[in-house]
Amino acid sequence: MQDRFIPSKLSKVRRLPKRGAYDRATIFAILDAGVMCHVGYVVDGRPLVTPTAYWRHGDDIYWHGSAASRMLKSIHGADVCVTVSHLDGLVIARSAFHQSVNYRSVMIFGTAEVIEGLDDKRMAMRAFVERLYPGRTPEIRESSDKELKAISLIKLTITEASAKVRDAGAIDDEEDYAIPTWAGVIPIQSTIGKAIPDQRLLVGGQLPASLAAYAENARLDDVLSGHIRP
Amino acid sequence: MQDRFIPSKLSKVRRLPKRGAYDRATIFAILDAGVMCHVGYVVDGRPLVTPTAYWRHGDDIYWHGSAASRMLKSIHGADVCVTVSHLDGLVIARSAFHQSVNYRSVMIFGTAEVIEGLDDKRMAMRAFVERLYPGRTPEIRESSDKELKAISLIKLTITEASAKVRDAGAIDDEEDYAIPTWAGVIPIQSTIGKAIPDQRLLVGGQLPASLAAYAENARLDDVLSGHIRP
Repeated sequence: MQDRFIPSKLSKVRRLPKRGAYDRATIFAILDAGVMCHVGYVVDGRPLVTPTAYWRHGDDIYWHGSAASRMLKSIHGADVCVTVSHLDGLVIARSAFHQSVNYRSVMIFGTAEVIEGLDDKRMAMRAFVERLYPGRTPEIRESSDKELKAISLIKLTITEASAKVRDAGAIDDEEDYAIPTWAGVIPIQSTIGKAIPDQRLLVGGQLPASLAAYAENARLDDVLSGHIRP
Repeated sequence: MQDRFIPSKLSKVRRLPKRGAYDRATIFAILDAGVMCHVGYVVDGRPLVTPTAYWRHGDDIYWHGSAASRMLKSIHGADVCVTVSHLDGLVIARSAFHQSVNYRSVMIFGTAEVIEGLDDKRMAMRAFVERLYPGRTPEIRESSDKELKAISLIKLTITEASAKVRDAGAIDDEEDYAIPTWAGVIPIQSTIGKAIPDQRLLVGGQLPASLAAYAENARLDDVLSGHIRP
């Protein structure tokens, strides 16, 4: 396996190419720091973008939903574009033109495949739980066959992908540095709030080990990245 | 103006319709709480999903980018789908099947229009700055004609839109409440970090009034929603 994806016309970052990357390490790190992706697909010639939770296993991205959903019925064998993005900061410049944002994003291209086998679905659902909550599977009820039949599971093998990252301060025109105003970066992060226990708990309110990484004020991307076993 | 968008086959929320909404108040509140959208469009029959910053004015959504970008060159007159989503929590259930997430999302459908006039572009850039940083315009240099020519400005008039919201605790099967494990919601929010001043500031490090709402630990969605003047 090469350590990078080969960009074609489709995936090559053409605007500001210095912000582009095609290596698996960069791409996987961005994917493994997120929960939600945006799936783009075409129905009757028109674009649709659906947000959904996803997970990665090797070069494959998975997501699932109801077997009755519009996306999941029309997507088998179709070209899709899956985009994951993290907003990392607001870049405050000294001119309107140089306002910007810091971000990490990945665009993935490939053909979606609907996974039908119940055993494959069961393993995938387990992998999804374990990706978010390592060690959680023995603590909960696994999916029944009936439940698995009600789920559509989609696999996208990454055939092309590109990452784009901006991680820098304000970059102003030289003459604008004379403007006496604040400039810099306002960082943004997804953080964990205080856990809200269900009202019918039979156990204490403390989070079990499988969930303990979601401590109040932790960064979501740190928690998620920490769950990845190399 | 009606206070809701009329859903067609395209925008009607069919899965779990109780989560769907079409009224402007719900849709605008979700749009006005975000910085980044995901723009879906079709190039050579293939879907592309590009993350970008956006802003709303009435029923119009705007975004901009380099005049040289692939998206912005191919998008005039094209059908697009713009999706905005906020991840609000991880829903921890007692079965694999009922794991879920809390979220607010909007899908917008319409035809993109490239705005060419320099005056229109200047006003739009000003509106973008003011949407994020109210009162900032007099503090910075406005865009030059040369800069405006290097920008493509896109307008999408919302012709159809739907919102989808999940905001609830774990919903388990009745028999699963006997499982002695933690369940509930782990809230997620986008929060503001400590501002990082540029190294060439001519002023003190304190944020001016136009940026003061971005206080450390504030919620991004609260800050942005607070900037909307009814």
